[in-house]
Amino acid sequence: MFGIMRVIVIGGVAGGMSAATRLRRLSENAEITVLERSGHVSYANCGLPYHVGGVIEKRSDLLLQTPQTLHDRFALDVRVHHEVLSIDRARHVVTVRNLDTGADLELPYDHLLLSTGARAIRPPIPGIERALSLRDVEDTDALVAAAATARDAVVVGGGFIGVEVAENLVHLGLNVAVVEATDQVMAPIDPEMATPVHDRMRAHGIDLRLGSAVAAIGPHDVTLTTGDTLSADLVVAAIGVRPETTLAEQAGLAIGERGGILVDDQLRTSDPAILAVGDAVEKTDAVDGTAALIPLANTANLQGRRAADVIAGQAARNRPVLGTAIVGVLGLQIASTGWSEKRLRAAGRDVRAIHTHPASHATYYPGADTIALKLLVDPHTDEIIGAQGVGESGVDKRIDVIATAMAGRLPASALADLELAYAPAFSSAKDPVNMLGHIAQNLRTGTSRSIQWHEVADAVAAGAVIVDVREASERSGGRSIEGSVHIPVNELRDRLGEIPDGPVIVHCAVGVRGHTAARILTQHGRDVRNLDGGYRTWNAGIRAHVTPA
Amino acid sequence: MFGIMRVIVIGGVAGGMSAATRLRRLSENAEITVLERSGHVSYANCGLPYHVGGVIEKRSDLLLQTPQTLHDRFALDVRVHHEVLSIDRARHVVTVRNLDTGADLELPYDHLLLSTGARAIRPPIPGIERALSLRDVEDTDALVAAAATARDAVVVGGGFIGVEVAENLVHLGLNVAVVEATDQVMAPIDPEMATPVHDRMRAHGIDLRLGSAVAAIGPHDVTLTTGDTLSADLVVAAIGVRPETTLAEQAGLAIGERGGILVDDQLRTSDPAILAVGDAVEKTDAVDGTAALIPLANTANLQGRRAADVIAGQAARNRPVLGTAIVGVLGLQIASTGWSEKRLRAAGRDVRAIHTHPASHATYYPGADTIALKLLVDPHTDEIIGAQGVGESGVDKRIDVIATAMAGRLPASALADLELAYAPAFSSAKDPVNMLGHIAQNLRTGTSRSIQWHEVADAVAAGAVIVDVREASERSGGRSIEGSVHIPVNELRDRLGEIPDGPVIVHCAVGVRGHTAARILTQHGRDVRNLDGGYRTWNAGIRAHVTPA
Repeated sequence: MFGIMRVIVIGGVAGGMSAATRLRRLSENAEITVLERSGHVSYANCGLPYHVGGVIEKRSDLLLQTPQTLHDRFALDVRVHHEVLSIDRARHVVTVRNLDTGADLELPYDHLLLSTGARAIRPPIPGIERALSLRDVEDTDALVAAAATARDAVVVGGGFIGVEVAENLVHLGLNVAVVEATDQVMAPIDPEMATPVHDRMRAHGIDLRLGSAVAAIGPHDVTLTTGDTLSADLVVAAIGVRPETTLAEQAGLAIGERGGILVDDQLRTSDPAILAVGDAVEKTDAVDGTAALIPLANTANLQGRRAADVIAGQAARNRPVLGTAIVGVLGLQIASTGWSEKRLRAAGRDVRAIHTHPASHATYYPGADTIALKLLVDPHTDEIIGAQGVGESGVDKRIDVIATAMAGRLPASALADLELAYAPAFSSAKDPVNMLGHIAQNLRTGTSRSIQWHEVADAVAAGAVIVDVREASERSGGRSIEGSVHIPVNELRDRLGEIPDGPVIVHCAVGVRGHTAARILTQHGRDVRNLDGGYRTWNAGIRAHVTPA
Repeated sequence: MFGIMRVIVIGGVAGGMSAATRLRRLSENAEITVLERSGHVSYANCGLPYHVGGVIEKRSDLLLQTPQTLHDRFALDVRVHHEVLSIDRARHVVTVRNLDTGADLELPYDHLLLSTGARAIRPPIPGIERALSLRDVEDTDALVAAAATARDAVVVGGGFIGVEVAENLVHLGLNVAVVEATDQVMAPIDPEMATPVHDRMRAHGIDLRLGSAVAAIGPHDVTLTTGDTLSADLVVAAIGVRPETTLAEQAGLAIGERGGILVDDQLRTSDPAILAVGDAVEKTDAVDGTAALIPLANTANLQGRRAADVIAGQAARNRPVLGTAIVGVLGLQIASTGWSEKRLRAAGRDVRAIHTHPASHATYYPGADTIALKLLVDPHTDEIIGAQGVGESGVDKRIDVIATAMAGRLPASALADLELAYAPAFSSAKDPVNMLGHIAQNLRTGTSRSIQWHEVADAVAAGAVIVDVREASERSGGRSIEGSVHIPVNELRDRLGEIPDGPVIVHCAVGVRGHTAARILTQHGRDVRNLDGGYRTWNAGIRAHVTPA
C-alpha cells in the first residue's frame, strides 16, 4: 500500500476523535483507525455527571457519534472494545485485543496518536474497591444504577467532578457528604473565593467535610481520619486523575516530571512517529513555562486538531496552556484562568491581588446578581497572571474576557479600556472587567494602595487602625472587624480628627466607598490602605480558615 | 482663591458625572460644579426605555444619584435646571441660567468640561412636533403618560432606541409599527444578520415597515412616503442623535467633519482650558483612524474618567473606539463590534466574512440556543475588523471576547487558540469563538474556500453548480437553492460522478457538513467553494432583500 498513510489513533474521545476527523478532512487517502477500549467513542464526557442527576435526561444524548456515523461521514475505521496491549516502535505495529472476542491482532502504522486520557486516582484505602468513579459511559451506567437504590452517598474529593457529582446526587434526593482533604473545594480558586461555594453546598444540605481524608470504606459507611463515620450506601471517588501512560511507558516513550507523556511543540513524543495529546500529556504552563498537567476537554480537542495538522504536514504549534476552567454547582458559576494567589505565593512570586463584588449587570435592571471577581497581577510588570470568579451569572463571560486579554498580552490596566457590549440587561456602563482595570491602574500609579484580608491582623498588630466607612446598619449583629473605628464615608471629611494616629486601613462592604475614603484620607496626609474587596472578602477569607465542627 | 482649582462640568450624566466623581477622588481641593439643564443627574439613561415598558418598575430606580447624595459623598456642587447660556473663553467664565428662578449668573472656571451629550434628530416632517423622543427622565415621564392612554403607536427609526422603545410598547399591549427608512433595523449589523430580528419583531406583532419614511404626522395617524397610512395616537421619533454642540459652536470651539466637538488625545478641545467627552465629541475609529460619532454610554463614562485624569495632571490618553454595542429585543441579543461587511465593502476594502450558527452551549445540555455569529477579517493580514451576533443567549459573551481579542491585536486565526471556560452549561469544548478561529485558519491557509450568500447568483450565472449535501428532509417544502444538485454528504464519496463539470458550490444547513464535503471534493480535484453559513445564512440574506408587501 505504498503511498497510503496509515494512522492509528488510540482513544476515541475528545483529542483522539478531533484528530481523526480533522485528519480525514485534510486527507481523503489516509487510512485512519481509531481504537477505543470502552464501548463508546466521542461521547460527552463533560456531560456524564449531569446524566447521573437527570439534568441530561436521555442517555442517548451523551452519545454524540457512533462507529457507524463516523464511518459514514468520515470514512473512519472506529473499533470500540479494542484495547491496545503494546506498541512495537521498531516494527511500527500495535497489538490490539478485541475485548468482545478475545482475539489479538497486529495493526501497522505510519503515524500513531496516543489520546489515552487520564484515569481516576484510587488511593489504597481499605474498601476502595467499593468506590465508583466517573470517567466513561460504563462508569455512568454503574453510578446511575447504584444511585437508584442508594440513600446516603459520600463523594470523596471536592474538585470539578466531585462537586458536579455531589450536585447531581442532591438532585436525585440523596443525602450527600463531600469529603475533601484540603481546607477548600475547587483547588484552582483561592480560599476566600471558595467560601461562598462552601456556603452554597451546605445550604443545599451537603455535609461538607473539609480537611478530612477517608481512612476506610466499610460496607455501609465511610470512616474519616478525624474518626467520624458517615453512612454511605454509595461511595464515589473523585479525588483527581492521573495521565494514562501505561502504554507509553511500556513502549519506552519519555515521561515527564509530572507523570504525563512528554511532547514537543509539534505534539511529538520522544518517538517522532508517535504523537500524543490531551489529558495523557504534559502541557507547558503559560504563566511560568514549566510542565503542567491540565486535564481539560477544550485543550484536548485543540491538541487533537493540531496533531492532525502535524501529521498532514500543515504548520501547527502546540501552545502553552492557561487552564481556563468553569464548573456550575447548585446555581453558582465558578471559573478561573491562570494561577491563583496561593499558588503564586507558594512559588515565591510577588503578586497584586484585586477583589471586587460587582453586579452581573446594571442593578436597576431586573435579575442582576452580585458576583465575586479576583484578578492577579504582576506588580512589577502589570501583567495579568490569573483571574477567578464566583457568582450566579455573568462569571463565565468575565473570565473568558480576561483569558482573552491574557492571550493578547494586555496589561491589567488595559482592562479599563476594553469596549465591552453594554446594555443594562447585559452589563454596566463600566463592565466588571473595566472596573478591575481601573483598580489595577490606580494601584499601579499609586493613586490607591490596598491591603489583603490575610494581611490585616499583622498590620493591626503593628499599630494600624481600621476605619469602617459603612453605614451603621451594615455593622450590626457583629458584622464588623474587631476594634474598627466607625465613621461613615459621607461624614469622613468632618470627622478626620477622630482617627487615631498611625497607619490607617479603611474598609467598606466591597471596596468602592473604601476607595473614596482612602483618597480623602490620603489627601489629608494619612498613610492609608483600602481593604481589598472590603468586609465581604475579609469575612470570606476569615471564614475560610475556620473548619466547622 | 489662588491655588484652588475651579472646575465646571456641563452635563451631569455618564461622562460628566464620571469626570466629576473621579476628579474629586483625585483632588479634595478642587472646586467642582456640575451644571445640568434637565431636572436630574446621573440617571440611568440606558434604562429609560425599560421603565416605559414597566420592566424597570420603579421610576426611582432610574435615579442613581441626586445632587444631595453627590454633595454628601463627593462634595460636588451639582445644580439641576441650570442651563449654560454661553462660554466666555477669554474671561474663563460661563453664564448659566437657573431655569427655576430665571436668574442668570456667571461662574468662573480654570477647567471646563463639556459633556453635553447628543440630542434627538427631529427631521422637518409636517407634524413632527407631536412626536416624542426619549433622551432624559422628563422625556420618559412624557412617554409613560402618553402610552397609558394610547392604543396605536408608531416608532420612527429602527436603531437601538427605536427597537427598545418598540419592544417596551409591545409589553404594554399597544399596537406598534416601526418605520425604518433603510432596508433593515439595527444599522451596525449586516442585512442577513438583521433578518432574524425582523422575524422576531413581526412574530411579536410589530408592523415593521422597512424602506419607508414618514411623510407626515397627522393628529391620529402617520402617512408614509409609500402612501400607506398608519393609525397613531402615539408617535416616537427615534431616528438617531446628533452631537449637542450649540454651546461649543457659540464659543468658537473647533467642530469636526462629522459634526462633533473636536478633541485631541487628551480630550482637549481647540481651547486647552476646555475638555469635552461623550456623545458630543468625535472619536477616532479604531478600524481606519477616521473621525467617528459613536454615542455609547460606556465610551462616555470612560472618557469622563480620562478627562478627570487629564485635569488632575495624571497620564491619560483617549483611545480609538471600536464601538462595541448590544441591544436586547424581544428575547434576542443583537451585538456588534468594529465594522460591518456592508461598511467595509462601501469603503472599498477587501473583506473575508465568516458566518456560523453554533449552539450557545453544548447541545446535549438543556437550554442551548442556536446563535448566528459573523466575523469580518482582513484577508491580507488576518486582522479582525469586526464581529456581529444575534441569538437568544451567549451572544454578549462571544462579542465581548472578540472585542477583547481585537484590543489585544490577536489575528483571526488565533481565536482558535483561545482558552475559554468550558463546561456543558456554558459553552462547547470548541467554543463558537474557537470555531470562528478554525474557519479563519482554514481560509487563510487555503484549506477551505468559501463563497458568500450574495455571490452565489453571479457564480451560478458564470457556470457554477450547487451541491446541497443536506439530508432530503432538510430540503423539503422549497427550502433549497434553485437548481442545486442533492447529494447528502455521507453519500458524496460514492456519487462523485453525478456532479456536473465546472466550479462547485457546496452547501449544507450552516456550513459544517459543507466544509467536510468541500474537502472531499477538493481532494478529488474539483474547484470548490463552501457556502459560508450554509443555507441558513443564504436564506436570511435573500430574504433581507425582499421587502414584504
